[in-house]
Amino acid sequence: MSELPQPPEPALPAPDRALSVPDRALSVPDLPGRFAARTEGMTASEIRALFAVASRPEVVSLAGGMPNLAALPLDTLARQVAELVARDGQAALQYSSAQGVPVLREQITEVMAAEGIRGHADDVVVTVGSQMALDLVTRLFCDPGDVVLAEGPSYVGALGSFAAYQARVVHVAMDDDGLVPAALTAALDRLRTAGQRAKFLYTIPNFHNPAGVTLAVSRRAEILDICRRYDVLVIEDNPYGLLGFDGQTYPALRSMDPDNVIYLGSFSKTFASGLRVGWALAPPAVRDKLVLAAESATLCPPTFNQMMVSRYLAGHDWRGQVKSFREMYRERRDTMLSALATYLPSGCRWTRPDGGFYVWVTVPEGVDTKAMLPRAVSARVAYASGTGFYADGLGSRQLRLSYCYPTPGRITEGVRRLAGVLAAELDVLHTFGTPDRTTARLGSGTDSSARRGPQAPTPDTQ
Amino acid sequence: MSELPQPPEPALPAPDRALSVPDRALSVPDLPGRFAARTEGMTASEIRALFAVASRPEVVSLAGGMPNLAALPLDTLARQVAELVARDGQAALQYSSAQGVPVLREQITEVMAAEGIRGHADDVVVTVGSQMALDLVTRLFCDPGDVVLAEGPSYVGALGSFAAYQARVVHVAMDDDGLVPAALTAALDRLRTAGQRAKFLYTIPNFHNPAGVTLAVSRRAEILDICRRYDVLVIEDNPYGLLGFDGQTYPALRSMDPDNVIYLGSFSKTFASGLRVGWALAPPAVRDKLVLAAESATLCPPTFNQMMVSRYLAGHDWRGQVKSFREMYRERRDTMLSALATYLPSGCRWTRPDGGFYVWVTVPEGVDTKAMLPRAVSARVAYASGTGFYADGLGSRQLRLSYCYPTPGRITEGVRRLAGVLAAELDVLHTFGTPDRTTARLGSGTDSSARRGPQAPTPDTQ
Repeated sequence: MSELPQPPEPALPAPDRALSVPDRALSVPDLPGRFAARTEGMTASEIRALFAVASRPEVVSLAGGMPNLAALPLDTLARQVAELVARDGQAALQYSSAQGVPVLREQITEVMAAEGIRGHADDVVVTVGSQMALDLVTRLFCDPGDVVLAEGPSYVGALGSFAAYQARVVHVAMDDDGLVPAALTAALDRLRTAGQRAKFLYTIPNFHNPAGVTLAVSRRAEILDICRRYDVLVIEDNPYGLLGFDGQTYPALRSMDPDNVIYLGSFSKTFASGLRVGWALAPPAVRDKLVLAAESATLCPPTFNQMMVSRYLAGHDWRGQVKSFREMYRERRDTMLSALATYLPSGCRWTRPDGGFYVWVTVPEGVDTKAMLPRAVSARVAYASGTGFYADGLGSRQLRLSYCYPTPGRITEGVRRLAGVLAAELDVLHTFGTPDRTTARLGSGTDSSARRGPQAPTPDTQ
Repeated sequence: MSELPQPPEPALPAPDRALSVPDRALSVPDLPGRFAARTEGMTASEIRALFAVASRPEVVSLAGGMPNLAALPLDTLARQVAELVARDGQAALQYSSAQGVPVLREQITEVMAAEGIRGHADDVVVTVGSQMALDLVTRLFCDPGDVVLAEGPSYVGALGSFAAYQARVVHVAMDDDGLVPAALTAALDRLRTAGQRAKFLYTIPNFHNPAGVTLAVSRRAEILDICRRYDVLVIEDNPYGLLGFDGQTYPALRSMDPDNVIYLGSFSKTFASGLRVGWALAPPAVRDKLVLAAESATLCPPTFNQMMVSRYLAGHDWRGQVKSFREMYRERRDTMLSALATYLPSGCRWTRPDGGFYVWVTVPEGVDTKAMLPRAVSARVAYASGTGFYADGLGSRQLRLSYCYPTPGRITEGVRRLAGVLAAELDVLHTFGTPDRTTARLGSGTDSSARRGPQAPTPDTQ
């Protein structure tokens, strides 16, 4: 009995060489020659290349953004997770919905309420970290060549997703109060004049990665209003919002304009990054497509991890735990700011974060942070050079320092070593003069035409 | 002290309306109007729409592909996972590499060795289920409009990923021995004549989803040779390979042509789907881009889940566990085949799987399985209609039955109910005559031009 559709032509007789390697197996096919065009934008991030180096124990890494999990209640978690397997293992180890487990989506709305968001669990889509939410939102909105606006500097993982979908990033300047409304308007006007339109504004309003600044509350309605006027969607990425060092929170952009903001949240910094549980809160029309995109990306986020987070939120004083994290990070922030003031040569400037993980440092003119990095690693300190946080090659006079993971003693030692490296660079500069700046920029792999774009910030020249 | 790049223009004075909703907040922006072109291909799968229905307890669902986890050793797992948190929690709950945890990648090479694969851990990329590997491989290779070859029928999740990247699917016919080499050659010749080239052949050689057939060993070298001759990469998806009911395994395509095959594997069917741990084994040039794509998709796969799988493989008789799964599924397969022979009306045909989860049923001419589904659900049985497994609208005379999840008693009862529904359909057909077939086809949402494509199989008309 033939049970399957018959082929249109009879099958060839089975050749007498089963298991043999095909004749041409010795030649290596040109697989990269078949890659899609989008792969051109997929290049190793500078930060990623650093991980191997930074993991060497003798190097003080101020480069990574790993949360410090030392304060986690492992005994409690061990008990909770064993109970989860024993009591709900059949469900926890099984497929679940692409949108996420309902009870966790409810709990996520409670987490978001701390920042003024009144969202419905139906509009929450659980993702494999908020990185996946970012990737999927870009997938939904960006055709190749589409423009997205992002702060300059911006989160390196966002730039990676934008590149993977061949979106063009236009950076918008920040100051100590975050995104500058006038700069946003100017960027949008320039795009309009050029006949282009931005698909969305990607912004990290609170305790910015990498800049360490927070969007002033007084600017928030204005930013939203500008985006409304220019018909631009807002992607609000808020992984650090509950890590304000004085316990302060800021009203989420989503809370102020629910219809025009897609909100991205994460448990990576408030609970455990290795579980990879994040989420998006989106207006229904977007949420529906987001679920479909999520389904084709991973079928569903890990059920086990969602139920583990759910148990943790329900059975542990998670707010108290976040408070412990905040206090630990505040101490490290204090240590870093103190060390910077003590050790860094004159002419350096840096932001003063009141939450989150990062300080953004501007070094004296003539120093190229990317070129300096190998010398820093030789001196046993690692940082993230600023160029990784721009899509247009800027940032060579900036670097990002993370105080989240190392101990206070290591932070002080790392800054001391960095200061020594900087002093040596400045000595060389004073002896031999400032290098030709144009050459230095091009030499760092920048696209010079992109740097003449409408809204490129000018950290190197101010 | 100004620590950040200054904006090119002075910031506007802070407006006196912080926290207010923007003026235009009452209007709802047209977010779908801004979607990327690829979202047109993102539509709810028929199978997904079934989940809600199939979960009602009175309905016997033969529709889903959920593994049956009843045999899992939950006590052992509870102990292992508690130990993981207590002893290695700091690492397990932390970010890790985008490529996957090294010890698990080593273990994965041992798992693959059972099917003759000699792979290196450096070439393994761990993903969030093999669905993510499939999504990323498509991302790497498919520009919009690119052709991919896939068996007809094919895995619905693969069709979803191909649609998300705007790839065009050309189906290649199968028979009881799997993919038909002559049909593959014919499809490639037609594409060549049309000046087109397929980016890759996507194939499930073992215990096919949904067809339940296995690619004959005698055909494997020939298929690989054809792909070499036509310069087509092979994507080998093998989630069920260890679930052969007699303990048999087949030589993986990857084992026979390592340079031209990307292999996708999964722990979803041999351990636990809710952990979402799958992998790709790829030639180095592809692997490098795959890691970059994975990084922008999720940063890293969940560390916790990888370490959990690793402990399970190291500390439990996982091969014995797979044997238990096989025996359970064999009993269910036997039950289903027996029930089909007992109850189904004459004129029905079906495949006889020797592994995996699925039987593919062809019903008598005139019956439309998609149109019949609501009546089946009314009769408290659910299946997956065949159209969901074709990108071109074929399959309306086929349906997929899953025996993996229900108990044998429920399987028998489900088939009995399905037989009743089919008998009623045939009664109506005999009374009122066969409906106009062209209308029926178009009525099921098919693209009639696509059905005239070069390699469309013809299940409705044979």
